[in-house]
Amino acid sequence: MRLRKDSKIEILTIGSELLTPYFQETNSQYLTQRLNDLGMEVSFKSVVGDDRENLLRAINEALSRSQIIIATGGLGPTKDDRTREAFAEALHRKLLFHKNILKKIEERFKRRGLSMPAVNRKQAYIIEGAAALKNKNGTAPGIWLEKEQQIIGLLPGPPHELKPMFEESVWPRLQKLSRFHVFRKVIKTASLTESQTETFITKLYPEDSSLQISTLACPGQIEIHLTARSEKSLAQAKNRVSRLEKKILERLKDHVFSSNGEELEEVVGRLLRSQKKTLAVAESCTGGLLGDRITNVPGSSYYFLQGIVAYSNQAKIDALGVKPAILIQQGAVSSEVAQAMARGIREKAESHYGLGITGIAGPSGGSPQKPVGLVYIALAWENGIEVVKNRFLGNREKIKFQASQIALDMLRERLQKKHKS
Amino acid sequence: MRLRKDSKIEILTIGSELLTPYFQETNSQYLTQRLNDLGMEVSFKSVVGDDRENLLRAINEALSRSQIIIATGGLGPTKDDRTREAFAEALHRKLLFHKNILKKIEERFKRRGLSMPAVNRKQAYIIEGAAALKNKNGTAPGIWLEKEQQIIGLLPGPPHELKPMFEESVWPRLQKLSRFHVFRKVIKTASLTESQTETFITKLYPEDSSLQISTLACPGQIEIHLTARSEKSLAQAKNRVSRLEKKILERLKDHVFSSNGEELEEVVGRLLRSQKKTLAVAESCTGGLLGDRITNVPGSSYYFLQGIVAYSNQAKIDALGVKPAILIQQGAVSSEVAQAMARGIREKAESHYGLGITGIAGPSGGSPQKPVGLVYIALAWENGIEVVKNRFLGNREKIKFQASQIALDMLRERLQKKHKS
Repeated sequence: MRLRKDSKIEILTIGSELLTPYFQETNSQYLTQRLNDLGMEVSFKSVVGDDRENLLRAINEALSRSQIIIATGGLGPTKDDRTREAFAEALHRKLLFHKNILKKIEERFKRRGLSMPAVNRKQAYIIEGAAALKNKNGTAPGIWLEKEQQIIGLLPGPPHELKPMFEESVWPRLQKLSRFHVFRKVIKTASLTESQTETFITKLYPEDSSLQISTLACPGQIEIHLTARSEKSLAQAKNRVSRLEKKILERLKDHVFSSNGEELEEVVGRLLRSQKKTLAVAESCTGGLLGDRITNVPGSSYYFLQGIVAYSNQAKIDALGVKPAILIQQGAVSSEVAQAMARGIREKAESHYGLGITGIAGPSGGSPQKPVGLVYIALAWENGIEVVKNRFLGNREKIKFQASQIALDMLRERLQKKHKS
Repeated sequence: MRLRKDSKIEILTIGSELLTPYFQETNSQYLTQRLNDLGMEVSFKSVVGDDRENLLRAINEALSRSQIIIATGGLGPTKDDRTREAFAEALHRKLLFHKNILKKIEERFKRRGLSMPAVNRKQAYIIEGAAALKNKNGTAPGIWLEKEQQIIGLLPGPPHELKPMFEESVWPRLQKLSRFHVFRKVIKTASLTESQTETFITKLYPEDSSLQISTLACPGQIEIHLTARSEKSLAQAKNRVSRLEKKILERLKDHVFSSNGEELEEVVGRLLRSQKKTLAVAESCTGGLLGDRITNVPGSSYYFLQGIVAYSNQAKIDALGVKPAILIQQGAVSSEVAQAMARGIREKAESHYGLGITGIAGPSGGSPQKPVGLVYIALAWENGIEVVKNRFLGNREKIKFQASQIALDMLRERLQKKHKS
């Protein structure tokens, strides 16, 4: 089959746990991303439980309105898992037993020193006319059925089973049907607002619908998504994105921290490690979040020496050497204290760089002069210091996150400047 | 209308952004929770974009299979917002203009010093026979239609508009229809595994289906959800839950940290504050996460004095007074170092309690003797110290979280023991 321009695509996620308040389903976001990467837009997403009648109802509706249906879940060995059976019934096709699949399932159990429970036998049944998709990380094979005007893929629910199966067996099959080659890139900035970003790039929005820019405001950062489609080749799509990326980078310059998928703490870690520099941080209102994010990067022990969370004034004096006079005259939330913290931790830890953060995370503790969200951030290095005053909006956790983001971005800019000079 | 026992409930979320990979939709989880609280189970969840044809298709399917339909999104002022119009069309009902609603929308803009854009006028139209639901936080009123055999509620998409509207206007209406009064309580433990918890409570599982226990394994904690339904009164449901809760608490004793919705860091904060005690923490592998969690609680500056993230050995020596000989003989990841860190930070910060964490978060750095996930946690107080050895599973972030959880729980147990004695 060849995909029509108006073909509808549906993701059907199956499982009663998805209809409780406790499960945040993520498979459909992943599938949407990968389908979009092929230039395929999703028209419907449906969630249904294991109840036979409801499941059949949802499957029949999907079959009647969509040309591509990707279903996830309900391929397990228990009685509640009836996706296989329900699709066979709705499609009026038999389930056929495959000896070689049973053998593989039995071997999988054997390798773990177990014998296969009888219930797993049903996973060796495949819908008539469909292909079995290999499951590297579980017993349930996927099922792939291509009819004249319709494609149906049944995939296991656990993400660590679904994702490799999709990449290895579904992606190549869908790629053959796709009318387009699609290439996508994400440019990230932490130092501009959404409207500032828009102002920079507004003249670059392409007329051509095969090349798209969309900006996405995430907590503490703005993402610019570039997507190119080509009917000719992936190289052409890549080329279009690269040309647009270059123009955007020329305008946004040092504001960009990543265009290769890296998070800000990863960029900072990579720069510190390659320049053989070390870091220590002094936090007040962020309470340890900055250190936490830095140490989420594997290998951070190569460059991260020490953090001090100086929440009380006494801790700022004792642990960081902030002078009591400054605390009294300027207050704990001030440019002077942020600088003294950055300098203090740098000297104490004998690191190349020191970051200091002091502010008011709220909800209480604000005043007209020093409102909730006011945060000073300082970066100290061998021959200098810089400090920025910020006014963040949002709740306590959002203010803390934005502060950690700006601190990391100050260091990132400094490391990149140094690198250039 | 009165709800039939087999009535089906559907949540229909509307908006093209929900069919992109970038939006994690949370309204349906919230609505599911609140419907469950009324003893109502959700049968279908559907997501559809703003496209007129697809939207009508999804609405018609919902109308044909479900007795209660709660739709969210698409009530805004732009052309893409067509939920109101599409439901009117599918129901073959007119949209009627309400002068008083328009007046309220105009006044809302006026209060902000703005005049109402012409596009907002359409928000003053309500489906024939339906009631308008007040929107405290936005311009779009909700729409509530009760037919003979069916109920349709249209709510705005932004959670800060949807939630107050649901609580004030939808909840009381649904409560009248509910066959049950439902009461729910969540008991949380951080020091037991799921199977240990099961062993403790396995004999308490009620025979009666109107009283339910379900355990949920969350990162770093196990939750026991108790739900009682009563056809008679809420008091009866509450009473049933209370009796069961009492029995469970008798068995789990000090393992329980919360049965009133509090998170572990909130419990610890409340206990420290009420006992007028202070805390300081010394972290290695958790990198600041413990301090971050403690300071996520508003008012934590009353009891949290200081944190030190001693990532390098030198920092452990300089900042916490850990003796070099211990580091050499026992290694940085050892019971002795955890204890020295807890004692060191307590003395340094002059706090009542000191917590010390040292371990291997991975993915690298492990050895057969000291594998990834090995974490020692020590708690020091005036007259004593305790230390526990843990072996956590999971990735870097999961190991860090579990370590912070056990540290908080050790302190919680100590504070509660002290309180009793």
